[in-house]
Amino acid sequence: MEMEYKDTLFGKLIQNSRSGMKPFHMPGHKRNEKRMPDINPYRIDITEIDGFDDLHHPHGCIAEAEQRAAALYNAKKTYFLINGCTGGILAAVSACAGTGDKILIARNSHKSVYNAVLINRLKPFYVWQDESGVVKPEDVDAVLRRNNDISCVFITSPTYEGAVSDIKKIADTVHMYGKILIVDEAHGAHMIFSDMFPESALDSGADIVIHGIHKTLPSLTQTALLHVNSNIVDVERLERYLGIYQSSSPSYVLMGSIDYSMEYLQKNAKKDFLSYEENLKYVYDELKSLNNIYLLPYGKARDASKIVVCTENTGMSGKECYRLLREKYNIQPEMSAPYYVVLMTSVWDEREVFEELVKALKEIDTACDGYPLKNNTGLPDIVRCEYVMTPYQAAVTDTEEVNLSEAAGKVSAEMIYVYPPGVPFAAAGERLSEDTVRLMKAYHEFGYELYGMHDNDGKKIRVCKVV
Amino acid sequence: MEMEYKDTLFGKLIQNSRSGMKPFHMPGHKRNEKRMPDINPYRIDITEIDGFDDLHHPHGCIAEAEQRAAALYNAKKTYFLINGCTGGILAAVSACAGTGDKILIARNSHKSVYNAVLINRLKPFYVWQDESGVVKPEDVDAVLRRNNDISCVFITSPTYEGAVSDIKKIADTVHMYGKILIVDEAHGAHMIFSDMFPESALDSGADIVIHGIHKTLPSLTQTALLHVNSNIVDVERLERYLGIYQSSSPSYVLMGSIDYSMEYLQKNAKKDFLSYEENLKYVYDELKSLNNIYLLPYGKARDASKIVVCTENTGMSGKECYRLLREKYNIQPEMSAPYYVVLMTSVWDEREVFEELVKALKEIDTACDGYPLKNNTGLPDIVRCEYVMTPYQAAVTDTEEVNLSEAAGKVSAEMIYVYPPGVPFAAAGERLSEDTVRLMKAYHEFGYELYGMHDNDGKKIRVCKVV
Repeated sequence: MEMEYKDTLFGKLIQNSRSGMKPFHMPGHKRNEKRMPDINPYRIDITEIDGFDDLHHPHGCIAEAEQRAAALYNAKKTYFLINGCTGGILAAVSACAGTGDKILIARNSHKSVYNAVLINRLKPFYVWQDESGVVKPEDVDAVLRRNNDISCVFITSPTYEGAVSDIKKIADTVHMYGKILIVDEAHGAHMIFSDMFPESALDSGADIVIHGIHKTLPSLTQTALLHVNSNIVDVERLERYLGIYQSSSPSYVLMGSIDYSMEYLQKNAKKDFLSYEENLKYVYDELKSLNNIYLLPYGKARDASKIVVCTENTGMSGKECYRLLREKYNIQPEMSAPYYVVLMTSVWDEREVFEELVKALKEIDTACDGYPLKNNTGLPDIVRCEYVMTPYQAAVTDTEEVNLSEAAGKVSAEMIYVYPPGVPFAAAGERLSEDTVRLMKAYHEFGYELYGMHDNDGKKIRVCKVV
Repeated sequence: MEMEYKDTLFGKLIQNSRSGMKPFHMPGHKRNEKRMPDINPYRIDITEIDGFDDLHHPHGCIAEAEQRAAALYNAKKTYFLINGCTGGILAAVSACAGTGDKILIARNSHKSVYNAVLINRLKPFYVWQDESGVVKPEDVDAVLRRNNDISCVFITSPTYEGAVSDIKKIADTVHMYGKILIVDEAHGAHMIFSDMFPESALDSGADIVIHGIHKTLPSLTQTALLHVNSNIVDVERLERYLGIYQSSSPSYVLMGSIDYSMEYLQKNAKKDFLSYEENLKYVYDELKSLNNIYLLPYGKARDASKIVVCTENTGMSGKECYRLLREKYNIQPEMSAPYYVVLMTSVWDEREVFEELVKALKEIDTACDGYPLKNNTGLPDIVRCEYVMTPYQAAVTDTEEVNLSEAAGKVSAEMIYVYPPGVPFAAAGERLSEDTVRLMKAYHEFGYELYGMHDNDGKKIRVCKVV
């Protein structure tokens, strides 16, 4: 049937694939024509027929594929995920924290962790990250020492901006108290393949590690891996929850794509990651001496694959930098924030796009001179909120809508965030501080859409009717 | 990169696509070469970049695509689902039944409904289906009359074998008590396109209807739709749960495929479903006068698209019939049961495969003469179990393993089922009757794998340590 590729969703996807925009966003396959397998999804999309195993009870070709992935990552056991990291996070938290239990989570975790806390009615304790997004082992220790009945600890590392916490020390601390450590390493599935990147949680003692392979590796969106890397996880319980939160009709297109990427890495990672390192080093070296904008440096505590362009010393906002990259240079970044832009790279990015990025950023650096410096009041980096009640308690409390400008001091009934990255400004059950309200208003004024607000124009927020 | 298409999962998928097996199983696109869009998923697989909206907060091209689907189905509002019907079922139940509430569910519902009951800690009331799989309105009324504090009612129709309940009368009953009716119409997304099929729940007053469009329509596996078709659903709450149970990185390949199928139907359903009707009538007419096996008849209470071949009058088991179809006729059915085989058809099946199916079944009918009639004790059709406790209570109770043969009279701690279809023999919290144990043993002896058993060889079952 001849389809007219109009402005339907499908039509726009086809048009975009021909647009010549250079993707510096996930997924990690980057639409690389030289490397993508030559397949039509309709040809390989099947159901659980003879010889094709069953994701939820694997003992054939899917079990073997999972074992191959485990061997590649040197993990004890690896599960294919097809409802994204979300499915893995919901399952891991549900399995490790019994209903009503206490859990310690990094406050800068992804919204799906907060959802897991809500649906399991957990009492969350938060460990707050520092300005760079890192969680300190001593802060984890401090909470565990005072609350010995916490079931497990959940850390997100790397962050969206590539900040990596000291998982080894955190794991040692967590294990000293006899607890389980779950690490959301959604943004770090590529790290084991090169020494240029930080250490993976898999090599640092974490018990469960979740990898969003679609983000930084050449696998289709919605695919991920969950690794179990110790003996203290109740695997039967975990598998039950994986079966609950993921479709009983999992996609063989998605599973096949995971398998394809694992085999690609098994055969080619060594060689291809060397080229990738060179490309990244080239970018960071070339852009070392910019005048206005600057790149966040990389190292063992910050993932080099994420190129973060900071604009706070200039009159150019992150949004404006993002717009210029798109409209003038055909470079599509992953996301912008008020004062920075995140560009995601992968091992399937060709040398040419790195060269174009360098050229573009040098010109943008020069263009900054044309943007008058504003009186940047700056945004508060860490905006701590007071914990008042669990998300579940907030969900069953009476609520009312108030204007955002009157919300300081009130307890948020909803989780409020921008997407990406999906890290809450306010978690449900937290008392909104003046700083948080100011931060949310600033994002709103910068043109970012705040999700979780009651009102579509982002001005009303739902709060709990409490003292 | 040149991939050797070995016996990896990916390799087997490629090989299968070239195998010449005729798919009489889901998904409904049937790998139809003449009709599938010419796409490579890696080319259209993106993330939420400018202009591509956001499934979880749609107001652009995804919102428009959902509106198109709603218009096609004449629904008030339609949501794209990418974690299968599973995600839609978890969200619908979580939204309509507050935690700890009571819910009335058809006992022959899919396992994901039972999972929704478990994670929301609901108290389930069951309405049992009759021998053909149909739920009677008067039985729904009887339960609601005695338990006025039930929050909502969940019916699965059609069943895996195509049996359709009288949704209109059930909806009238449910609404008379002021409750919400959710219908899992996973197997019925095609029904509105032809009068040959039973009435859809969308035209029968259901408040929420879930469609597994990948099952019977030309959309990729893991895609589904959730329709809201009345004003009594808390849509804000529903949307929150859809955001919880589905990946925050939904696949544009999957969403694009939904959109493609909706546009295809909008343009071509009228014409193509006429041909499809002719093909189905041809099959049922040609196979009217078989001697041994027989087809379940179709009508307003049984979906013609599901060709169910019954073998109980013969010496041939369902499994054997399935095997013959596969090995002798290159026809891959959807599933078998001890005494029948289910073949799934769709509007993208070409005339030739129907002709081959007719030829194959005529020959198999003749071949039955060579299978000596066994003394079929028969299987109990409806095996009622006594409700003892909620699935959640069973999950937190102490348990022990016992042999299946000693399990009668004990309370099951797990949900036990075969997949497909994924309908539990025993729900968690039910006391196993002699009949249920006999049925489970029979399936086990027929060679079907029982899921939920504690032991891999299907002989041990986990039960609650209760009086």
